[in-house]
Amino acid sequence: MEIKPGPILAKIDSPADLKKLGREQLNQVCDELRQYIIDIVSVHGGHFAASLGVVELSVALHYVFNTPYDQLVWDVGHQAYGHKILTGRRDNFYTNRKYNGLSGFPKRGESEYDTFGVGHSSTSISAALGMAMAAKYKKEDRKSVAIIGDGSMTAGLAFEGMNHAGVADADMLIILNDNNMSIDPNVGALREYLTDITISPTYNKFKDDIWKALGKLPVGKTFTREMASKLEHSIKSFLSKSSNLFESLNLRYFGPIDGHNITKLVDTLEDLKKIPGPKLLHVLTVKGKGYSLAEKDQTKWHAPGLFDKITGEIYKKKFDTPQPPKYQDVFGNTIVELAEKNDKIFGITPAMPSGSSLKIMMDQMPDRAFDVGICEQHAVTLSAGMATQGMRVFCNIYSSFMQRAYDQVVHDVAIQKLPVVFCLDRAGLVGEDGPTHHGAYDIAYMRCIPNIIVSAPMNEAELRNLMYTSQLETNEFPFVIRYPRGEGVMPEWKTPMVEIPIGKARKLKDGDEIAILSFGHPGNFAASAIRNLKADGLNPAHYDMRFAKPLDEETLHEVFAKYSKIITVEDGTVVGGFGSAILEFMAQHSYKAEVKIMGIPDRIVEHGTPKQLYNECDYDADAIADAVREMMKDKVNILG
Amino acid sequence: MEIKPGPILAKIDSPADLKKLGREQLNQVCDELRQYIIDIVSVHGGHFAASLGVVELSVALHYVFNTPYDQLVWDVGHQAYGHKILTGRRDNFYTNRKYNGLSGFPKRGESEYDTFGVGHSSTSISAALGMAMAAKYKKEDRKSVAIIGDGSMTAGLAFEGMNHAGVADADMLIILNDNNMSIDPNVGALREYLTDITISPTYNKFKDDIWKALGKLPVGKTFTREMASKLEHSIKSFLSKSSNLFESLNLRYFGPIDGHNITKLVDTLEDLKKIPGPKLLHVLTVKGKGYSLAEKDQTKWHAPGLFDKITGEIYKKKFDTPQPPKYQDVFGNTIVELAEKNDKIFGITPAMPSGSSLKIMMDQMPDRAFDVGICEQHAVTLSAGMATQGMRVFCNIYSSFMQRAYDQVVHDVAIQKLPVVFCLDRAGLVGEDGPTHHGAYDIAYMRCIPNIIVSAPMNEAELRNLMYTSQLETNEFPFVIRYPRGEGVMPEWKTPMVEIPIGKARKLKDGDEIAILSFGHPGNFAASAIRNLKADGLNPAHYDMRFAKPLDEETLHEVFAKYSKIITVEDGTVVGGFGSAILEFMAQHSYKAEVKIMGIPDRIVEHGTPKQLYNECDYDADAIADAVREMMKDKVNILG
Repeated sequence: MEIKPGPILAKIDSPADLKKLGREQLNQVCDELRQYIIDIVSVHGGHFAASLGVVELSVALHYVFNTPYDQLVWDVGHQAYGHKILTGRRDNFYTNRKYNGLSGFPKRGESEYDTFGVGHSSTSISAALGMAMAAKYKKEDRKSVAIIGDGSMTAGLAFEGMNHAGVADADMLIILNDNNMSIDPNVGALREYLTDITISPTYNKFKDDIWKALGKLPVGKTFTREMASKLEHSIKSFLSKSSNLFESLNLRYFGPIDGHNITKLVDTLEDLKKIPGPKLLHVLTVKGKGYSLAEKDQTKWHAPGLFDKITGEIYKKKFDTPQPPKYQDVFGNTIVELAEKNDKIFGITPAMPSGSSLKIMMDQMPDRAFDVGICEQHAVTLSAGMATQGMRVFCNIYSSFMQRAYDQVVHDVAIQKLPVVFCLDRAGLVGEDGPTHHGAYDIAYMRCIPNIIVSAPMNEAELRNLMYTSQLETNEFPFVIRYPRGEGVMPEWKTPMVEIPIGKARKLKDGDEIAILSFGHPGNFAASAIRNLKADGLNPAHYDMRFAKPLDEETLHEVFAKYSKIITVEDGTVVGGFGSAILEFMAQHSYKAEVKIMGIPDRIVEHGTPKQLYNECDYDADAIADAVREMMKDKVNILG
Repeated sequence: MEIKPGPILAKIDSPADLKKLGREQLNQVCDELRQYIIDIVSVHGGHFAASLGVVELSVALHYVFNTPYDQLVWDVGHQAYGHKILTGRRDNFYTNRKYNGLSGFPKRGESEYDTFGVGHSSTSISAALGMAMAAKYKKEDRKSVAIIGDGSMTAGLAFEGMNHAGVADADMLIILNDNNMSIDPNVGALREYLTDITISPTYNKFKDDIWKALGKLPVGKTFTREMASKLEHSIKSFLSKSSNLFESLNLRYFGPIDGHNITKLVDTLEDLKKIPGPKLLHVLTVKGKGYSLAEKDQTKWHAPGLFDKITGEIYKKKFDTPQPPKYQDVFGNTIVELAEKNDKIFGITPAMPSGSSLKIMMDQMPDRAFDVGICEQHAVTLSAGMATQGMRVFCNIYSSFMQRAYDQVVHDVAIQKLPVVFCLDRAGLVGEDGPTHHGAYDIAYMRCIPNIIVSAPMNEAELRNLMYTSQLETNEFPFVIRYPRGEGVMPEWKTPMVEIPIGKARKLKDGDEIAILSFGHPGNFAASAIRNLKADGLNPAHYDMRFAKPLDEETLHEVFAKYSKIITVEDGTVVGGFGSAILEFMAQHSYKAEVKIMGIPDRIVEHGTPKQLYNECDYDADAIADAVREMMKDKVNILG
């Protein structure tokens, strides 16, 4: 069934059409936009609650500002669905997050209205400031607006941006979209502070009270004019300088205002457009606004999958047989199992308790598992601090987010050889979230650091064994365990845990002439390819290498003695990754085998389902089988 | 001449000895400690002004706290000389920063008093919080103290740490050592804010005034009791919650106090020790305190080299012939030259204007070159924002500090293919600053990112040509130019600039059987090795590859067609670096040459002079010559 936009929205092909409308029509635009998002996302999937929360803000911004000349930068960007629909992408919005379809995030290549590609949080202030400084230098009256959530504000980058914006004398507006949520509820002192200035007495109310009271100060015998003047001076100076966290940073603070009152928003933005310099507007919104189930359970409805928009039933696939669990849930359950026996274990996640399933431990052991908010750098250095006290910290960070704590891994953990365990969730191609979220680089960027162990499990049992091994006293090194998003392969996953000798590979099968060395989950693709190759009379050996660092040198000597053709497979970039580690070993020992490295190619891979992307990137089972056939083509011909 | 400590300092072998002293003796301890630092650093070199600024603080902390049971974390750590001298390292302090000597920074392996290895800024709050949380969990009454400068406070990591500390309910003290300086003067809104709360009316003075005034509010006809009570309530609530940037983050704020008044410091720390929870003490110090020249020119005296402590003359090496300039100065002068012709060029540095020599441009073009403070992440994303507006930004960051902006390079620059130029200063082994500062990993961690050009000049002219090429409109990619700390090789460096085809290598000489492929400055070591090998009758070819990405495939096909033995040399890790790129090319094209990869080994390399370290790491001219001899030993034997 085709999904049709409402009558006004149907005519908005660009912000120019929106601007033609009278203010009195904006409420209807908001209603139609909200309904269209609900209609599309319920049937086609995607992020949900965040975009509902900024419907009015999206309409108001495009109504007031001269986009795309003025620059809107949406932080994170999964809330930009309304923005996309209003800027010429209404009719193909149903392709959102689909292979070859629209990106789920703003993307420069997709539209001139998407001024800055996003996906990771907290970049918007710095980016918008860069735009504002360029405009100032070019003497353009272009406005720059960063729209950033309160969750994103906890990341250091946002603070760095504000600290500079406060002195840069450039014309920019920061809109703080305060909904008290990241994907999970926000944490941290800033969160408490924002609540404080939001609830009574509100900051502005307080300011008003003080100013009024100052005007009425009576002067008499005990309270002299001099004292009154002194007090007044003190308060004035204090209020004008340091009475608010943002004003402390020299950003003029406005708000808080209701982010669902379109008239108020338009009026306020019109006013702010005329005020030069750096300023911040505090807008209160409700994540999931207008869809009551989403308002009530915002984490669940962050990206719910497909659902019945009337009943609110979220569709789940049904299976006749037991299915393998998600690697995430294996992690979440296993860390609890381990922590029950080892009282030194802590769990840390920067704002991904649900996504990583650390929530299982946080619920059961609240004094030993923490969500520290969006702050990967802090999460890693905090873990390092704990490790100095003998704690065994499992720091769970998505592979692509770990890029944000790279220096902390090098400087605070590896150089000091502290045995922190890094569980790199979402390693490899993540699917629909696309290029910003693919965990493509971690094997390469971790492997080059001394003192660090880099491992990847091929299945659930291996994940459990690696986790078990990493927390033993015998392990004295930082220990990376990378695994993909989603399901593994073992319905019966709750296997007894055994220690894996660090750096030791598993031989899965012997073979003839050619060997496949796999690292992590793609070992399953290799195993499947090998099964299919039997029909061709081809019989590759298969080794699950488990460790990209240290390499199992004993096994590799065996491999290169026995096999003259090698295929390596990994769920990471082919530049500098696991395959390159094998090449380095070969160079060191003068082995001359023919080697084909399979993995993520050296280009930006867009979004799609993981299956589509494995296929596109040529390292799924079919591609591996083809590669074996190609390398063995003389043999095949002989057989044929 | 032996340098002797003063009579009291001579008896302080550990903080236990310090604690035995009466308070009245502490001033003398401070005087002797300060003098000892001056005596040693003037003769043996090292960081200078920072440690002089915290003499009293160092003495007070060890006098009041129960170290090493209580944990002191010195941010950055180049100010920890007093701490080192007081904690058992007085007599071998003269080995500071020397090969096999003491580290210039706190280092866990060196002393149990060094609780956390540092070098990069802004890690101390997170690390100390991790310690405090572990102590709380273990029910220990251990105190944790982070001592952090106001410059380090501008980095996002410090903010992330405070945001968590404010809600973590752990017992920790942050000491804000406010001296208004990083290596260069601090910048940013936080800087202005700290000045505001430091000068009149001071924050505490103001608080006192208000409280006093509230007690005296007269009540009469116009000013009713109700109004007074309301006002009082408003002010109290405001003061207790959000009256200060730090208190906004739920850190109890104390200060500012004079950081050179030892009695006041000891009293205050004694008091604070008894107050549970997260708290911040604002201490005002003068960088270089007690050495008047250093107080007056703090940037110059940050790490002045050797000097005459009486006259203040900083010794400079004298030469009869013109010497090559530092790569830094070539960068600084060349960017001005380019910017004069190309009005799109901007220069950005995060707090390293003097070190990088961007200061030359900042002085001449203040509207186009900026020091943004210690905030590498912001520096990169800001550059990306400017690049979206068509600007050509040269973002100059030391290689090891770039680790802190890794995600911004991937997410904000490379995925969007924005042509930002990254000048990675201090690439390779940096010498005396040691493992935290070695730029060892950038070739590996940059090369694995798609869309990015990774280059390194072999000399000054090449640096100029690469800079020239990077800013041309024909370059559409992010462009990394990495070069080492210190002098190049060309006294006559001001060569005319020419475009280098991107990815094109230089053949320096043909040869027989063996070829050396060098990347960057170590090409000079290779050239020197080749000169020395003439005597052995050996004649390696030499290619200055210039680019680790993209590789010059045409040249490489020529190389592998002609030479069966290859040596690669780079000033970066041998894991995943330039050498591995060559191996990947070989695997792709089935070349089977024998390859030796020379560069920084896969272990933490300690400090020393660059010459000592090149030698230790086996890639100086001698090591390269030896490697050639070893690979050609059959040939040598034939000749012999």
